[in-house]
Amino acid sequence: MNPYFSTRRSIRAYDPDRPVSDELLSDLLGQAIQAPNTGNMQIYSVIVTREPERLAAIAPAHFSQPAIRSAKVALTFCLDLNRFDRWCRLGGAEPGLGNLQGFTWGVIDTAIFAQQFCTLAEMEGLGTCYLGTTTYNAEAIAEQLKLPQGVIPVITVTVGWPAENLSLIHI
Amino acid sequence: MNPYFSTRRSIRAYDPDRPVSDELLSDLLGQAIQAPNTGNMQIYSVIVTREPERLAAIAPAHFSQPAIRSAKVALTFCLDLNRFDRWCRLGGAEPGLGNLQGFTWGVIDTAIFAQQFCTLAEMEGLGTCYLGTTTYNAEAIAEQLKLPQGVIPVITVTVGWPAENLSLIHI
Repeated sequence: MNPYFSTRRSIRAYDPDRPVSDELLSDLLGQAIQAPNTGNMQIYSVIVTREPERLAAIAPAHFSQPAIRSAKVALTFCLDLNRFDRWCRLGGAEPGLGNLQGFTWGVIDTAIFAQQFCTLAEMEGLGTCYLGTTTYNAEAIAEQLKLPQGVIPVITVTVGWPAENLSLIHI
Repeated sequence: MNPYFSTRRSIRAYDPDRPVSDELLSDLLGQAIQAPNTGNMQIYSVIVTREPERLAAIAPAHFSQPAIRSAKVALTFCLDLNRFDRWCRLGGAEPGLGNLQGFTWGVIDTAIFAQQFCTLAEMEGLGTCYLGTTTYNAEAIAEQLKLPQGVIPVITVTVGWPAENLSLIHI
């Protein structure tokens, strides 16, 4: 049994005094992006929110849950048809994913990428939490993040060094 | 950098002579199911297909791709509102996920579970491959697997010991 998987749990309280470095975050995202995706179309993007005032600005759309209030980083993983459609047109092709099939592939691939990030982050000792509010309040979140047409928030993961007692997971 | 993540790739050719034991498969699925999910509703199920004749029966719905033709195991990860709705009604509640919000949460959670399985399997040395055909041919796959109403195939992952030259991933 692998303790990173069999006893993992979501962490909603983060150490206020310990930052998550740009270098670590970039490294983890760079590895996570090697996750499989449909037809290598890469129809996702991730928005990194780190500044306290920006985290505070998106918190209400996440019902100001404890996880977003103490997070050092919020990652908003988005289905991104804006870039894909542009790429198709640059190649003289008509984009064809603006439908339920494209949406479903995009949500699957976005979730795979997000989960790969979470596993890598947990293996580094970071705590992560998925916020179930993202699709619920997608429009408000898209406005806050100034997302272009075709970029849809699907998943938000909060990240930080755990301030919860992790020994509980070994009960 | 973690080699299980940064250099991983999908494997589409599996060793025909090396089975994947029930014990290993159960252990990996048991660990993967600890992945996070929305509100602990657990709105997914996984169908394990191992018998050669059953693998052959579902292959056409996956366009008989090489991965399904040589797979030792096919895992069909499904959004499962059948069990969830029954659970709600047993508690006197009216189920409310039969809509785009429930579908999206279910697809996200199913993908997270599937990816957690793939990572665990790859760390054991197994090869895995996502088949992009599952949502495309969901109805035919549901018929083959005799899925009840409300259980929708979302992801298929093929599994086996790699017959491809893995050293390529280190180029």
